[in-house]
Amino acid sequence: MSAPDSSRGPSVRKVPDGDSLSRLVCPDCGYIAYENPKIVVGSVCLFGEKILLCRRAIEPRKGLWTLPAGFLELEETVTEGARREAREEAGAEIEIEDLLAVYSIPRISHVQLIFRAKLLSPRLAPGPESEETALFAWDEIPWDMLAFPSVTWALRHYREVMDETGGRSGFRPRTNPPGESGNY
Amino acid sequence: MSAPDSSRGPSVRKVPDGDSLSRLVCPDCGYIAYENPKIVVGSVCLFGEKILLCRRAIEPRKGLWTLPAGFLELEETVTEGARREAREEAGAEIEIEDLLAVYSIPRISHVQLIFRAKLLSPRLAPGPESEETALFAWDEIPWDMLAFPSVTWALRHYREVMDETGGRSGFRPRTNPPGESGNY
Repeated sequence: MSAPDSSRGPSVRKVPDGDSLSRLVCPDCGYIAYENPKIVVGSVCLFGEKILLCRRAIEPRKGLWTLPAGFLELEETVTEGARREAREEAGAEIEIEDLLAVYSIPRISHVQLIFRAKLLSPRLAPGPESEETALFAWDEIPWDMLAFPSVTWALRHYREVMDETGGRSGFRPRTNPPGESGNY
Repeated sequence: MSAPDSSRGPSVRKVPDGDSLSRLVCPDCGYIAYENPKIVVGSVCLFGEKILLCRRAIEPRKGLWTLPAGFLELEETVTEGARREAREEAGAEIEIEDLLAVYSIPRISHVQLIFRAKLLSPRLAPGPESEETALFAWDEIPWDMLAFPSVTWALRHYREVMDETGGRSGFRPRTNPPGESGNY
């Protein structure tokens, strides 16, 4: 097999017969690459009142802090995916408690499912995608060093839900803040 | 452009360099088809106490009843997608009220986001994928003619939430029933 040739593969945009939307089609063999939005699963993980953040070792936003989160893989449930990401990025074992938020980022066709979770141990070990992992009290969160707007949204929504419910389950999951279509 | 040749395109399964999972790769040009789970968005739509169902005009499960639901498209938010599906399949204009449930169907790599919604008018018009649309009182639901297990789950969860909250917002979205991994 030859090395990938970026000029080949599905590279022509057209509406296939019987379809209503434009798709990427391979001009050589007619293969149609159906593209769909991707699901990101992640968690606000608590140990006591401290929140787990990971400092990104990779682009984009290398060096900035984020929640353990990433793309759901095939044949995973959403909670399996969120637990895998916490394990891969922070060496953390977590217990998923509630669905905290669903954010749509339509410009890049992402849907984020963010859970509230409990860290089962404070022992952490940064994975290949993290330079560092740490537990932050609310007042210590590096707000000006967060990697993505949705990290800020999720942390604020976590706090809002805690203030509203005192940590009990049975709340309405949050969505994009008003006016924030996630176009970052 | 020639007609699609199903023997071409990404057809060889291998682990690309630097990756950890097996992907479909094109043996001709090296194009890698990253596959991710798909998002299904749909709604339990109420007009008064009656629930909207659509009788499927297409396989699978042609002739059986389902909720208006389908794949989220690129650059859509999840609520935009759910409203589009209600419009396409039932000619229905709806207002999304709450996230009712998140179901993972790992065998087929689907994640369903099902909303509770209000029909803005009882005027319905079956789209190309529906043979018929109708409003059912709870006692009239054709339980033995529902298209998919997740339709049954969503209807039961709708009823459970109504019994618990009396229709108020602020409840915990439901997930797969215990023991139901969605392997249908």
